[in-house]
Amino acid sequence: MSILVVGSVAFDTLKTPYGERQKILGGAATYFSLSASYFTDVRVVAVVGEDFTAENEAVMTKRGIDTRGIQHAKGKTFHWTGEYGENVNEAKTLNTELNVFETFQPSIPAEYNNSDFLFLANIDPVLQTRVRDSMQKVQLVGGDTMNYWIGGHRQNLEKMLKGVDVLLINDGEAKMLAGDNSLPRAARRVMEMGPRALVIKHGEYGATIFFRDHEFGAEGHPFRAPAMPIDEVRDPTGAGDSFAGGFMGYIASQGKIDRGVLKYAMFYGGVMGSFAVERFGTERLQSLSREEIDSRFKIFRELTHLD
Amino acid sequence: MSILVVGSVAFDTLKTPYGERQKILGGAATYFSLSASYFTDVRVVAVVGEDFTAENEAVMTKRGIDTRGIQHAKGKTFHWTGEYGENVNEAKTLNTELNVFETFQPSIPAEYNNSDFLFLANIDPVLQTRVRDSMQKVQLVGGDTMNYWIGGHRQNLEKMLKGVDVLLINDGEAKMLAGDNSLPRAARRVMEMGPRALVIKHGEYGATIFFRDHEFGAEGHPFRAPAMPIDEVRDPTGAGDSFAGGFMGYIASQGKIDRGVLKYAMFYGGVMGSFAVERFGTERLQSLSREEIDSRFKIFRELTHLD
Repeated sequence: MSILVVGSVAFDTLKTPYGERQKILGGAATYFSLSASYFTDVRVVAVVGEDFTAENEAVMTKRGIDTRGIQHAKGKTFHWTGEYGENVNEAKTLNTELNVFETFQPSIPAEYNNSDFLFLANIDPVLQTRVRDSMQKVQLVGGDTMNYWIGGHRQNLEKMLKGVDVLLINDGEAKMLAGDNSLPRAARRVMEMGPRALVIKHGEYGATIFFRDHEFGAEGHPFRAPAMPIDEVRDPTGAGDSFAGGFMGYIASQGKIDRGVLKYAMFYGGVMGSFAVERFGTERLQSLSREEIDSRFKIFRELTHLD
Repeated sequence: MSILVVGSVAFDTLKTPYGERQKILGGAATYFSLSASYFTDVRVVAVVGEDFTAENEAVMTKRGIDTRGIQHAKGKTFHWTGEYGENVNEAKTLNTELNVFETFQPSIPAEYNNSDFLFLANIDPVLQTRVRDSMQKVQLVGGDTMNYWIGGHRQNLEKMLKGVDVLLINDGEAKMLAGDNSLPRAARRVMEMGPRALVIKHGEYGATIFFRDHEFGAEGHPFRAPAMPIDEVRDPTGAGDSFAGGFMGYIASQGKIDRGVLKYAMFYGGVMGSFAVERFGTERLQSLSREEIDSRFKIFRELTHLD
């Protein structure tokens, strides 16, 4: 099975308590693709500028990722500059240069039309809706968004949500979107807007998936996956997108989509997120082995299972 | 098996988004006792004032709790006044009247000397150490503390920690005590101070137990118990003490103390905490049935277990 991801490929300049890096490869679609590439075929639609090198692109192609959907535009690549303090759950954005990303118009190559799964990374919901509408035959659509769109682009976002099967957002975003501080109540409200399941990411505490009644053969109970206690979170950038990549990638690697598969997908999401933050940027996600992934999955199981 | 708990029995006046209550029964030892009483025999050492009624005490005796260790002193009972905003994880203390609690000198009745387990709820570490030293024959000592003692009574606290087998504190307290923002690293440092295991409570995200190497037959891996997503957290007061009561109570109800028992104890701690917050004060903890506890335990398992 194959996944098409549409989102940002970018450069990040960042500082954490463990060091700093200048213009390293980043972006939601990058983290998502690398993470998902350990499970299934991945295709990327994104835009980069003239400063995006063959070496940058090779990071993805070496993992077998199909990058034919990456448009090369005149100008510079999206460049985010940020900083993390002692609380690694909070990023402080110092500068956002959208550059070529500002006028990004996703265009799906004909070769991608047969994709089985679609992930709409965090971009303008108008573009997300357009892409989703053009991919009617996919089995499952995953999506992400952020407070910027929740606050200021509500109508467009609500349209987008109608086309998403599983939305993956964090606690604050879920509460803001629902206008409710109770997570389970917020989850139900968000699912009334469209998604059949909602994954709420709790950072270092893991993530919870809520199911709409009668969806995915689920009896309605939520399911919670842990995050792994990690000594040194060197760089939390991309943890959420790596989670989404593991989550969607695992689903795509299975022959069916039911509650059991979604539960395992939650664990694989957590596993991939835990790798992502161990080193700066995408470094750790570039050279994993299936054995490392399976062995960490085992740790996640031991961390949570009674017997 | 029996547990002796030493701590506060108090009145709480509080306001949450769901309502307010004046001078209702509260206090760490109260929540702990009620919660533990569903698993084992409980004895309480505390102090109350002249405003503490027979009806108040009956809340405990009705649950079979031995209250002979509650001293009745001249003056008023400890009275806490606080408020919770939309973020139920944060209490705002409006007033603390220590009253008779200010000069509390725990005195263990002779009938309590044969207690099998000891829980030192959050009081002055000097008193905790004195009680612990007088109870040399207990099988396991659990303890709690708070930022006030961590910040200003360090030496006394470090003495106390040497006598505690399992310390139960929250994220912020663990980081403060260790002077380290990485939870697993902080856990190791705290355990170097004495405890053989450390339970770090994450509020609505559950709790993690860390084991010192070679203790409790554990191979060192931590274990995480969830909290249950609850629609309406009416009153979060006492959640941590109810967790501790379920945790210690379950351990005391088993014939052995090993990693397997401690893992189940983490789940039962979460279960009891989840009941406590559903209603104001100790209301929900007064009239549970073993069936309700077991049925919620099942929900906790379904929430976290893959198969």
